[in-house]
Amino acid sequence: MKTEKSFTNNAMIDQLIENIQKKGNPSVVGLDPTLQMMPGFLKEEFFGKYGRTPEAAGRMFAEFNRRIIDAVAETVPAVKPQIAMYEKYGLPGLQAYDETCRYAAEAGLTVIGDIKRGDISSTAAAYAAHLEGAEIEGERVHTWREDMVTVNPYLGTDGIAPFTEACRAQDRGIFVLVRTSNPSSAELQELELSDGRKLYEAVADLTIQWGENCVGSYGYSDVGAVVGATHRAQGEALRARMPHTFFLVPGYGAQGGTADDVAGFFDRDGLGAIISSSRGITAAYQKDAKYTEHDFAEAAAEAALRMRDALRSALSL
Amino acid sequence: MKTEKSFTNNAMIDQLIENIQKKGNPSVVGLDPTLQMMPGFLKEEFFGKYGRTPEAAGRMFAEFNRRIIDAVAETVPAVKPQIAMYEKYGLPGLQAYDETCRYAAEAGLTVIGDIKRGDISSTAAAYAAHLEGAEIEGERVHTWREDMVTVNPYLGTDGIAPFTEACRAQDRGIFVLVRTSNPSSAELQELELSDGRKLYEAVADLTIQWGENCVGSYGYSDVGAVVGATHRAQGEALRARMPHTFFLVPGYGAQGGTADDVAGFFDRDGLGAIISSSRGITAAYQKDAKYTEHDFAEAAAEAALRMRDALRSALSL
Repeated sequence: MKTEKSFTNNAMIDQLIENIQKKGNPSVVGLDPTLQMMPGFLKEEFFGKYGRTPEAAGRMFAEFNRRIIDAVAETVPAVKPQIAMYEKYGLPGLQAYDETCRYAAEAGLTVIGDIKRGDISSTAAAYAAHLEGAEIEGERVHTWREDMVTVNPYLGTDGIAPFTEACRAQDRGIFVLVRTSNPSSAELQELELSDGRKLYEAVADLTIQWGENCVGSYGYSDVGAVVGATHRAQGEALRARMPHTFFLVPGYGAQGGTADDVAGFFDRDGLGAIISSSRGITAAYQKDAKYTEHDFAEAAAEAALRMRDALRSALSL
Repeated sequence: MKTEKSFTNNAMIDQLIENIQKKGNPSVVGLDPTLQMMPGFLKEEFFGKYGRTPEAAGRMFAEFNRRIIDAVAETVPAVKPQIAMYEKYGLPGLQAYDETCRYAAEAGLTVIGDIKRGDISSTAAAYAAHLEGAEIEGERVHTWREDMVTVNPYLGTDGIAPFTEACRAQDRGIFVLVRTSNPSSAELQELELSDGRKLYEAVADLTIQWGENCVGSYGYSDVGAVVGATHRAQGEALRARMPHTFFLVPGYGAQGGTADDVAGFFDRDGLGAIISSSRGITAAYQKDAKYTEHDFAEAAAEAALRMRDALRSALSL
């Protein structure tokens, strides 16, 4: 599937792969803050300063994330902030999302915005600003700071094209929702089509097409796929079906997926997938009595190391 | 499909229907601003004050929308801001989205946020803040100000449930993407299933289920469906298939749909659908040489009246 339009140097997927290789760790920390996850001393500080307001939540999340990023930046190649957790708190929440993206990028991490946007063509082009910024009177302004984002396929090619154009023109990447990790995902994604495929396989085949012109020097495309760790056999079959498609794999840890479950999502060289864990890393301090809330960043660092080692072991790296 | 849990008084869909009846107009103005759509005198003013910045774009959009809302508020029951057009410009853009929602709500209009969000359960619950706000230390804060929002079904029931819970608990409404108006929408939505249905019909059937417990006093559910004006026959068939599902219908005007195309999306009483037009209203001043850019609000008001009258005539209201 490599084409003459392939990147050789700057494909975002190449940058992600090189980050993974440098850290020896195909995992990504999901930054999905909740108030429940915040240590009491941060709540006291920020509710004290800003009241029980969205601004307090946003500023607290940004501070929490900075400390988590500092703690894991040596270990992990990427972070994946889930924009919904910030959008919940309105504009101050989204400011924390943006600050988190910028802080992680400055720390040398690949920033995967879990935004799951999808709309008709002209509207999808507006969402593509997450990757390429907005043009204002002939000048490009970077209104957001993600390297890659997740996108929803339900609207078809014209809703994806603005993102794939940004992949090519601005060296960015996307992950198309193919097979999500949640319990109800089968309701639509596993519907059987008259041609014998399941719906998610049809989405997989479209994703292959969408990525054909963005294959980088490791043989993987800037157009990747979201494939949940909770679907082991399907993930392994998709690995064979989509040899040039990199997988973003949620559902590890808190949602039940293990390192053994996801080993078959990788290729023989140990590439082809990046496994995401959120609460399992960022709220690790709440799961083990040996930590106090003041150890939250250290607990996250240790959880990230354990995840790295579990994946290395399962992949025999 | 009416159930004992039906609302009688406060269902959001009842409020929308009563707004439609009061105005005698089943249409909604899409507020999807672009810089191309802005009159030169507004560009001069805002770029002059704030430079060529996202802040200029956001403040300009908010001002443009306020004047459009003032001009159409007597004629139309609802507005539908498309969040992507604001999100493109980052936080200042989203501030304009929020101000637009609040201004329209104060003008007595039903605010339909075209956000097309969709994610796994805990994340979808965060997005449901658009409808129900966020709880901060036991206090509910309204971080956004929409009455209804559009949602994406690809993740299945657990991704929709937080929104339907908000419909019931907070008297809000949603429209599920069933059959979108864009050219590529058939790629997935018209895939034939092994049971003979098309995918969009399977989504329609799920949407019926999701709305069963939220039927208001006019027989329509707070859980509606997006059905594009560009699919006349399918819209008419869906009207019969989904007797309790209210339709939000994009694709009128600039995308090609006419009043005759959408007449069959309504029930015999002229209820059951609300037709959306965006550029056709808000950029009307650019389509007719009789207007100068200073007439943009008046041109929008006249276009909204023409659309109302075309729908009234097609529906014999």
